[in-house]
Amino acid sequence: MAELVGNCLIGQSGGATSVVNASVAGVVAEALNHSCIEEVYGALNGVMGILQEDLVDLAAESQQAIRGLRFTPGAALGTCRYKLKKQQDFDRVLEVFKTHNIRYFFYIGGSDSQDTAAKISALAKEQAYDLRVIGIPKSIDNDLPGTDHCPGYGSTVKYICTTVRELALDAEAMGKGDLVSIVEVMGRNSGWIAAGSSLSKRRDHPHDPPHLIYLPEMPFASDKFLDDVRRILKKEKYCFVVVGEGLVDKDGNYVAVETSSTDAFGHSQLGGVGEYLKDLVESQLGIKARVARLGVAQRAAAHCASKTDADEAFLAGQAAVKAAVNGETDKMVTLVRGDSDHYTCETGLTALTEVANNAKKIPREWISEDGVAMNFQFARYAQPLIQGEVTVPFENGLPSFIRLHKEPVDRTLGLYEV
Amino acid sequence: MAELVGNCLIGQSGGATSVVNASVAGVVAEALNHSCIEEVYGALNGVMGILQEDLVDLAAESQQAIRGLRFTPGAALGTCRYKLKKQQDFDRVLEVFKTHNIRYFFYIGGSDSQDTAAKISALAKEQAYDLRVIGIPKSIDNDLPGTDHCPGYGSTVKYICTTVRELALDAEAMGKGDLVSIVEVMGRNSGWIAAGSSLSKRRDHPHDPPHLIYLPEMPFASDKFLDDVRRILKKEKYCFVVVGEGLVDKDGNYVAVETSSTDAFGHSQLGGVGEYLKDLVESQLGIKARVARLGVAQRAAAHCASKTDADEAFLAGQAAVKAAVNGETDKMVTLVRGDSDHYTCETGLTALTEVANNAKKIPREWISEDGVAMNFQFARYAQPLIQGEVTVPFENGLPSFIRLHKEPVDRTLGLYEV
Repeated sequence: MAELVGNCLIGQSGGATSVVNASVAGVVAEALNHSCIEEVYGALNGVMGILQEDLVDLAAESQQAIRGLRFTPGAALGTCRYKLKKQQDFDRVLEVFKTHNIRYFFYIGGSDSQDTAAKISALAKEQAYDLRVIGIPKSIDNDLPGTDHCPGYGSTVKYICTTVRELALDAEAMGKGDLVSIVEVMGRNSGWIAAGSSLSKRRDHPHDPPHLIYLPEMPFASDKFLDDVRRILKKEKYCFVVVGEGLVDKDGNYVAVETSSTDAFGHSQLGGVGEYLKDLVESQLGIKARVARLGVAQRAAAHCASKTDADEAFLAGQAAVKAAVNGETDKMVTLVRGDSDHYTCETGLTALTEVANNAKKIPREWISEDGVAMNFQFARYAQPLIQGEVTVPFENGLPSFIRLHKEPVDRTLGLYEV
Repeated sequence: MAELVGNCLIGQSGGATSVVNASVAGVVAEALNHSCIEEVYGALNGVMGILQEDLVDLAAESQQAIRGLRFTPGAALGTCRYKLKKQQDFDRVLEVFKTHNIRYFFYIGGSDSQDTAAKISALAKEQAYDLRVIGIPKSIDNDLPGTDHCPGYGSTVKYICTTVRELALDAEAMGKGDLVSIVEVMGRNSGWIAAGSSLSKRRDHPHDPPHLIYLPEMPFASDKFLDDVRRILKKEKYCFVVVGEGLVDKDGNYVAVETSSTDAFGHSQLGGVGEYLKDLVESQLGIKARVARLGVAQRAAAHCASKTDADEAFLAGQAAVKAAVNGETDKMVTLVRGDSDHYTCETGLTALTEVANNAKKIPREWISEDGVAMNFQFARYAQPLIQGEVTVPFENGLPSFIRLHKEPVDRTLGLYEV
């Protein structure tokens, strides 16, 4: 294999996570080890930055800044949800790559982003432009195929479980004051996040919350829900519920849309399912319920990130560079769990084309028969992913996150309208 | 002053906080230093436990458990919102006190709880029963009079500011994706909590969020709100809003009740003000908004507690015991700030009767002229309260909170129906 000499470009795409910057740090740290990589550029706001030739020089960042990426949430380069559609967009991307001699492209994101990366690579091949493209997984939803789990997921679960433990102590303290506590978590199409909340139960403490977990995988019926709550309240002092935002009924319709369609502005949006359950409990059972909706905090709570997760996100960034330098292209880095009982994790590769539009569901056999709890198989899978704490420096009482300096790379092309 | 020999009783009341258990730890630790205090009892669920003679022996708890109270959220003894009303209730309390030779009563709570403590003390005097009653302040709302600030407040602010910083990085990363971020925080009658979010701005970073803060103290008008958002979006990349749940309009009506009255079940409850603002932004400005409603997590997030706050809560517990042993009664412990520029805090005492029904408002001169930001006077006040981090032990990836063993004190009275 001939050595490919040129510049590398990193982009971030889709929703941010607590650890997606750690992957950028991994790419930068590793890229500097390889003389075939001359410049290390970042694209601002993913493909948007490529289209608009908004590139920054990451090698010019301080050591401190790159190290700080390992504990800073958000997406330090900015991200986007823009999807390349027109042929013109793709041509522009290639034009920018050629102009800046980008030979290595690392794209950090979910399935849509991996799809974009695959298409860019295909076009480069068509035009006989030598380019190596490696995707780096990122998803708090944990639903990318081909990888044991996704960077971002463990930290989200750790934060939610921490919060559930704290909320549970509060609920317990209130005695008969607040009988039903509901926490609504993210997860539009899959219940990995809601399922993760089950880790907050301590081993050998069957009474620990959450007592009921509602996953988008299991069709929701309000009668059964109310029965579930009644059943729990017969044996527990309070009932603690975790619900995934994407809960659907037996016909596959979102449960929450139906209620919010009655709001003052006629909007029909996801995310009110916690309030919906609260209303059900209060109106049908006549008892008080509380709801917390953690929102974006779930993907941004770096102060409560999993060290395992952050380290694996960094590792995935490093692995992407190593693979590309070794001649790989059109692949996404995967996390591969070792076979032994003691958790180990290495990286692997899967074809980018395998990743797109192929969401990984929770195996049915990891969910209890009654559908509202997770069993030991899930715990065995998820427990290792939340281990260890990231040390975030605090300054003047608050976490001191870093911001990149973002030294612009000179533009040489004309403006491009997106 | 004659030494008063007998047992002491501690109760917790009202909503839990991240540090209300630290005050219990302070009482227990100090009580053991005084030979005039023979037994150290806890009342389960505040006055409910007294009425029902549900007492536990706190001296029987392990050192580990009492130390663990300094980082465990919730209310380890349980709490209640029950208000003593009938004369019969008060008589029963005294009967329980006499039966168990309770001579020192420490009640940790907000203004209602201090009122209860005052009434119990008055009855004891009437009946010539020698009893010393000291209240210990607790309020995330920070609205108790007579004290510079309230244990519980600093930790809530620290958690919210941490979350705001993280959410802000997420919002910043999304570029033009999510233009308006709204965080709804607690504070039914006062804006101390919402105001506290202003500390998340870094010094000399005027563009830092939150860009707009809506306090219950300042009458809300949707036109002005929409103008505010428009103004911010002209100069910032995104608009970050923090709103207190108890927002009212110019007639003093809760803003959020009006919308939620249109919900499917006809409920009229507080707490939807974040959604209300989101709907306003989306329908009137046609841009996307996100809302996070942290709910009870705000008063339970011990993993992000302020060390200053936790230490002061402990100190307040100790001070209560010292005061009682020194012959004080009918007082609440206060926190007294030193005069120097370097923050110091001692304890003082105020009359219990001064505390009830006398909520402390934010001084108008601490709020910016336009009413949607806090000025340096507020920062000078609040900044010291969030300093330092409590070290919560993590086990298997999650915070390991303690639970009291709760060895029951033998009952000698008949049952009492509440």
